[in-house]
Amino acid sequence: MKVITKEEIVVINDGGVTTPKGFTAGGMHCGIKRKRLDLGYIYSKVPATTAGVYTTNQFQAAPLLVTQKSIAIENKTQAILVNSGNANACTGDQGLTDAYTMQKEFASVLGIKEHFVSVTSTGVIGVPLPMDKIKNGIQQIVQYSDVELFEQAILTTDTITKHIAVQLEIDGKMVSIGGAAKGSGMIHPNMATMLGFVTTDANIDYFELSTALKEITNETFNMISVDGDSSTNDMVLVMANGVAQNEKLTKNHPNWELFIKGLKVVCEALAKKIARDGEGATKLIEVEVKGAETLEGARAIGKTIISSNLVKTAIYGTDPNWGRIVCAIGYSGMLINPNLVSVSIGPFRVVEKGLPCPMVEEEVKQYLGQENVHILVDLSQGDYQATAWGCDLSYDYIKINASYRT
Amino acid sequence: MKVITKEEIVVINDGGVTTPKGFTAGGMHCGIKRKRLDLGYIYSKVPATTAGVYTTNQFQAAPLLVTQKSIAIENKTQAILVNSGNANACTGDQGLTDAYTMQKEFASVLGIKEHFVSVTSTGVIGVPLPMDKIKNGIQQIVQYSDVELFEQAILTTDTITKHIAVQLEIDGKMVSIGGAAKGSGMIHPNMATMLGFVTTDANIDYFELSTALKEITNETFNMISVDGDSSTNDMVLVMANGVAQNEKLTKNHPNWELFIKGLKVVCEALAKKIARDGEGATKLIEVEVKGAETLEGARAIGKTIISSNLVKTAIYGTDPNWGRIVCAIGYSGMLINPNLVSVSIGPFRVVEKGLPCPMVEEEVKQYLGQENVHILVDLSQGDYQATAWGCDLSYDYIKINASYRT
Repeated sequence: MKVITKEEIVVINDGGVTTPKGFTAGGMHCGIKRKRLDLGYIYSKVPATTAGVYTTNQFQAAPLLVTQKSIAIENKTQAILVNSGNANACTGDQGLTDAYTMQKEFASVLGIKEHFVSVTSTGVIGVPLPMDKIKNGIQQIVQYSDVELFEQAILTTDTITKHIAVQLEIDGKMVSIGGAAKGSGMIHPNMATMLGFVTTDANIDYFELSTALKEITNETFNMISVDGDSSTNDMVLVMANGVAQNEKLTKNHPNWELFIKGLKVVCEALAKKIARDGEGATKLIEVEVKGAETLEGARAIGKTIISSNLVKTAIYGTDPNWGRIVCAIGYSGMLINPNLVSVSIGPFRVVEKGLPCPMVEEEVKQYLGQENVHILVDLSQGDYQATAWGCDLSYDYIKINASYRT
Repeated sequence: MKVITKEEIVVINDGGVTTPKGFTAGGMHCGIKRKRLDLGYIYSKVPATTAGVYTTNQFQAAPLLVTQKSIAIENKTQAILVNSGNANACTGDQGLTDAYTMQKEFASVLGIKEHFVSVTSTGVIGVPLPMDKIKNGIQQIVQYSDVELFEQAILTTDTITKHIAVQLEIDGKMVSIGGAAKGSGMIHPNMATMLGFVTTDANIDYFELSTALKEITNETFNMISVDGDSSTNDMVLVMANGVAQNEKLTKNHPNWELFIKGLKVVCEALAKKIARDGEGATKLIEVEVKGAETLEGARAIGKTIISSNLVKTAIYGTDPNWGRIVCAIGYSGMLINPNLVSVSIGPFRVVEKGLPCPMVEEEVKQYLGQENVHILVDLSQGDYQATAWGCDLSYDYIKINASYRT
């Protein structure tokens, strides 16, 4: 492994939630889905300071209610139990009872406090959990300790696992931050629509971690959109177990900025992986908005473009139809001056101060055929910028979603 | 024809903008599109009081700017010239010059004041109009006087023409209201995304007509969504030429409510036709929201459901996935009580006070196979209601939009 020098963040592409010291993870098939893995866990050998962000959907699923309440008791978690294939949402009192049962049974297996177990679910809405299968799975799951099994067990319509880790030095100690996520459908701004799990062996203050997570989420997970639907179940949890034994990180710590930068690298990488693996996606679209009068404006315009079905289908069809980008800017709800707006698709300037630029259509078309598409919007009105990520809209999105349940 | 008795509105399904007395309309192929008709007009034998609503997109196309300005001079129009195939949007000063040229040349052909000609365009953004072809067309177009040609000439990716008329009695005189529209893509709330032309031979006060049009638009055209994109070009114009010779309609006129009801029937019928003919649509979806605390809330929730790609694909696939409807209600941004929400799909209650109802999946699936799908949401929180219309999202939407320009 590369030696870490101060202020450097080393990205470990094949790393994940067990890269930080003191974490194990695993996954198995317990029978919620027909064949694929559907039950996963993360475990920290010591209780970890835990911060979370949760969906803004008013139909919050039962496991979110249980997890938020449990974490609030000591701001700590020692284990996360995830099932996929069933969201345990719109399941009423039975759903709450089931979520508490999952928590209790896994705590008993691990021999830890019940409120140190966070439970999360993703999948179909409105169907009671098959609790016999899940309870049976909970009894066996620690035998399946393998981070790759965990990464698979949390997926729904995702086509690939999503993980990353970074390492950096704090107080001369090596600190790691690792992450895993699932995404694919119901992916849209406002902390919703996906599951993200981040672990770190850093020792960090809960309140500072919590604030930092919210800010970073606004710049990363909340800046992606697959289909504009914000789910009932989604959350990001960060567990910090302190095993690296650094001095407790706060804003006053000399390495605070470095740690936050590392945390952002992990969250941004996971967010981009989710966007790229959107249902039916063939491409990752990155929209960079600069020159905005406000940060809110830059973000709203980026998200509007990335959410436009017309922009998404045009990019799927490698059609340099910049009119749809301009149109989306115009209906974003943010005040702009149309005569100052410039747009580039990759290296090609297509709109300059509100007017079309001459372009060789075939060149832009070829650029759009690549797997990563970059769109730059310059509003020329101020100093704020934001980046949003999304994916194209293809036949396969329809295929996947016209028959998800059946 | 059926005899009209007072307070009755007779719907003439094969009627249109020339059903009201004193209007003619026509259309032709001038060469903007390869083969299909692309230039249309409506003409009133006398100047008509004209009210309009226009896109909220900040990139308003040149013809909208010209038309708004021209109508404002006397609140009157005598002719509307429409081209399809090219939106004359993002075309800068040249676009404005071209729109004024269209206005001037058609006014000269008709021998009327220039500002009595409204110009509108729909089609591709950012390409200069082929003015030679259009000017040539303007010289000939009055030879092609036929309302069906007009209805065809305004279409883009629409698959059918959209028209309707109603008749009613005011002051013992027969008054007609007729309409035509084009829709299909870039269809979304906020007066955008379509062209609607309504004519009437009623004599009506401009300010009252203008206010009524805004209110009716909020209940009809602004309650439809095909793909969430609000276009740069769209508008609805109502021309009232007074040829029916009724006493001038104002709010104090005893038949005011009847006329407004008739106008709403025309606008709602056109709006539904646009939704049903959304790009790639196989079904019309009607979402009725009741029991809302506010009118704004009822509308926002209806529009959120109708705009959800996940709801739209589920209905395309006849999948009774009510979880997606509930999820959309939850992220609409309106405060609701999840435990009071009930949802029906057609005659089948699927959610009762936040919890799933037993349903025979095959029955609901069969219902979703019909061409008209009705969804009822009861929030049980207040007395406001609203209805929104949309369509399903199919493979053909992708097909149409991945290669619209090429």
